Amino acid sequence: MKTPFDFYFDFSSPYAYCASTCIDDLAAEFGRTVRWRPILLGPVFKQMGVLPVAQVPIKGGYALHDFARSAALFNIPYVQPAQFPISTVTAARSMLWIEKNLDEARARQFAHAVYSAYFAKQKDISNTDVVLALARDMGINADDLATGIQQDSLKTALKEQIEAATARGVFGAPFIFVDDEPFWGFDRFDHIRRWLRR
Amino acid sequence: MKTPFDFYFDFSSPYAYCASTCIDDLAAEFGRTVRWRPILLGPVFKQMGVLPVAQVPIKGGYALHDFARSAALFNIPYVQPAQFPISTVTAARSMLWIEKNLDEARARQFAHAVYSAYFAKQKDISNTDVVLALARDMGINADDLATGIQQDSLKTALKEQIEAATARGVFGAPFIFVDDEPFWGFDRFDHIRRWLRR
Repeated sequence: MKTPFDFYFDFSSPYAYCASTCIDDLAAEFGRTVRWRPILLGPVFKQMGVLPVAQVPIKGGYALHDFARSAALFNIPYVQPAQFPISTVTAARSMLWIEKNLDEARARQFAHAVYSAYFAKQKDISNTDVVLALARDMGINADDLATGIQQDSLKTALKEQIEAATARGVFGAPFIFVDDEPFWGFDRFDHIRRWLRR
Repeated sequence: MKTPFDFYFDFSSPYAYCASTCIDDLAAEFGRTVRWRPILLGPVFKQMGVLPVAQVPIKGGYALHDFARSAALFNIPYVQPAQFPISTVTAARSMLWIEKNLDEARARQFAHAVYSAYFAKQKDISNTDVVLALARDMGINADDLATGIQQDSLKTALKEQIEAATARGVFGAPFIFVDDEPFWGFDRFDHIRRWLRR
């Protein structure tokens, strides 16, 4: 049994969104599956003393251009969100709750819905009502979810997932481990292929 | 006549070194040529308020790993230099002098020699004697070169090339313009291909 890829992402990362649209296919090329692990990059950037890329002088403008162009070159629907980056703690906790209380497949389906809402449909996924509505559309009980993401145990679970990620060296998104080999960026998909074909 | 690619690079950038080994081939795939334009990133990073990537906490260690792995995955000889990054002003001025006083082909040949010395042969290219020896090995008069790179006009020419680069939005290396479309990174070669094939 081959080890699944570990796929770390923040719902506010355009490159992680691009990665989310095809990471399962990439893994399948090599008979692998993917463990989807939502994290929050805000605290990680603070620890590193860096700004979100769109806020870095000079580089920021290029980054916005490259987000949209990267998506277009890979035929991924993309509209630059007006509010960017935004808080994704509710979306991340919700995905974790769905994974723990329902199953991984629905958690992944929910992640696709959140990403598409934010990066293709101009929805504000920092808004709890928006996130709950996405779950409701999938047939998930939104009241249970709303209660669940307020539980301390769930908040702690996300915090621990972020701590575990940084302990492994995660500092951006998408961040993918293939066995223990770390790859940062949607632009490393080609490197992952080359790595696994060696 | 199709516009040549503009290829901006710092002799201390590992990803620009990787790009240098195959940018002419990439351009040739599309019936294009390449204008090689050495710059210095130190002043640019200062202006942006960022550190060289290898010095960024957490990210730095990954970057060193990714330099060597990227080279290996593309069959490019690579040994991480002990001193890194280093001053490349002498190498950049020398290349510019060769281009202006001899020709572009020899300037490019010299650039390959400098990159190979630094990233494959563990030579200290911040040392003027090392740089002059590389030119001498190509049959260039090293005394003329040594005098040439001390001329104010040559120093100004490099300064102006860097200013022109930043005015176009260059903030890292390799930085490539295809017509006026900007691409940053060795990992954008695939994007350049997709862009030109649209």
